[in-house]
Formats: sequence, structure tokens, C-alpha cells
Amino acid sequence: MSSLSKSSPATPITMAFVAWSGTGKTTLVENLVRLATERGLCVGALKHDAHRFEIDKPGKDSHRFASAGAESTLIVAADKLALVRLHKAAPPVDELIAKHFGHCDLILVEGWKTSNLPRMEVHRPELARPLLCRDETYDTNLVAVASDAPVDVDVPVLDLNQPSAVLDFILEGAWRS
Amino acid sequence: MSSLSKSSPATPITMAFVAWSGTGKTTLVENLVRLATERGLCVGALKHDAHRFEIDKPGKDSHRFASAGAESTLIVAADKLALVRLHKAAPPVDELIAKHFGHCDLILVEGWKTSNLPRMEVHRPELARPLLCRDETYDTNLVAVASDAPVDVDVPVLDLNQPSAVLDFILEGAWRS
Repeated sequence: MSSLSKSSPATPITMAFVAWSGTGKTTLVENLVRLATERGLCVGALKHDAHRFEIDKPGKDSHRFASAGAESTLIVAADKLALVRLHKAAPPVDELIAKHFGHCDLILVEGWKTSNLPRMEVHRPELARPLLCRDETYDTNLVAVASDAPVDVDVPVLDLNQPSAVLDFILEGAWRS
Repeated sequence: MSSLSKSSPATPITMAFVAWSGTGKTTLVENLVRLATERGLCVGALKHDAHRFEIDKPGKDSHRFASAGAESTLIVAADKLALVRLHKAAPPVDELIAKHFGHCDLILVEGWKTSNLPRMEVHRPELARPLLCRDETYDTNLVAVASDAPVDVDVPVLDLNQPSAVLDFILEGAWRS
């Protein structure tokens, strides 16, 4: 297992993950969060949810304030804070990253397929779905494919089952040059 | 009912609420949030929670990322976003306000008794508890008491059961001079 780590950079390293549903994208991101945190990095995780999620519980004070119309509700405890903000449309991902993740070392993003972020596609050939980023639209932001079997593409193919190696690839940053 | 409202100010109006437990402080704040929102204001609500709250649900992606160690987890939907940030100690309230509420018109705060924010004490004489802000320590940040019965203090006494009048008092801002 690699022990590659990095000190806090001036600019966070950001990587977005795209995949067909059921490919294991969230599990990969979860593993990368855990491994990067174990290496001492400050990690931010950012997910676009197509559904209207309920993160809070009815009856809790934060839920009462948000239900009463508070545009922003912030609950702060000794170990964490939670901010809920209502909006008419999701802000651009770049704006969200600048506002909330500027202090992070590593930012892992799920679910913005149309941003300009560098992207890694998570792929399982056994699912018999075409690559999203090399199919109908050739995605120039694609920097690698994480797959559990060989796949013929023009970018590096990483082993989906070796998240530590995937993390090394992201942190080494050769894909940025 | 007053229709006093205000256009977006350069600096938000901020008011903190203090009270003994069981006084109805959260209900007052909830009512103020609703009334101010109905008047077209952008309202922020900020609460210090002495307990280690669980805002999220185990098994949800946001919970998985936070459990894996992500310092910041942001979930974004079309109607709202939710940010969960882990910390070793709660940041100062001034810092939280500057970071998350600078765009609001009105910021209502619960639970920071030792900040320098202007304060309103919520009081119910029938509970037979002394005033927090005029008891052992004389609180120079106290600008009013919201009570459901007469109380003898050196600041304005507002009717706790008339939240619209309480909101007028806050927005008119005579207490700032």
C-alpha cells in the first residue's frame, strides 16, 4: 500500500466521478475519502442528488427553521456543523467548491457530468454498458477510467478494486499536465 | 399586523436569543423566521446544539462520506443543499456568520450566550426563573426582553405572544443606536 500523501496545497486537487448507476461509484468515492483521510488530508465530498433528499428529521429545530422558510439554517455542535440552504436552482459546482471547499486538500465530486472538472469514469465491463465519456460525446475532461477488467481507451485504466492506487494517481497529478 | 419590511442591507441585522430551557425560545425564533420570510426577507437561523446531533441518516451517501472521514460533505439537490462539516471545536459565531450568512437580511441566533451579539432574552415570569441577562452578570448586549407578562427591567419589554411586533422591533433597529 502506498503511503503517498501531500501537504496542504494552495489549490485543492479536484476529481469528479461519473458512472452508470450501479457501478459502485459511491463505494469508490467512500473508499477514497477514507484512504485520503487516513493519509492526513482534509477531504471534501460533493454529491449532486437528483432527488429531493430529506437530510433532516421533522420536529428537530433545524427542520423547524427550514420549514418556516429560513433560507439558511446552521446547527453547530462541538464535533460538527450542518448547514441547510434552500435555493431555486442548484448553484454551479465551481461556485460551490469555491465557497465551501477552498480549505480542503482533496475534493471528490459525484454527479456533475456537464462541469469542466477533470473526470474519472467508473466502469464495470460485466454490466455491458458503454463508456459514458467515450461514447456519443467524447469527453475531453476524462483523465482515467477505473475498471475491474481491461478496457480499451485512450486514457489510463486504473484498477477499481485498488482504491489506494486510484488515490495515488489522483494525488500524483500527472493527469494535470 | 405590521407590514414593515426592508430591502437587502449591506450588513445583515443579527439578533441572538437567550432563555432558560422551556421558555419557548425556539418557537419564537421559528415564528420570527416565518414572519420575516413572508415579508420577503432572506433569513438565516443559527443554533448552537450542546448535544452531538445526528442530522443525517445512516446508509445515505452523505452519511457514508462523513463516516469515512470527509471533513466536509455537501449534498446538492434542485431545491436545497446540505453541508456537514466535522470540526474539533465549534468555530466562533462571528466567523460562522461571516462565512455562511453574509448574504442574508436577517440572522436569528440561538444559544451563544458569551458572544458579542446583541441579545434578546425570552422570559416567562410564571416559570419563576430569574432573568439570565440581568441576574448575576449584567449583560450590556441585552437590547430587549420578550415576555408574556410585565417585567421590571431597564430595556424595552416586548410581548412574547406578538412575534410580529418583536420582528418590527428587531428590524426597526432603534436598539442599535
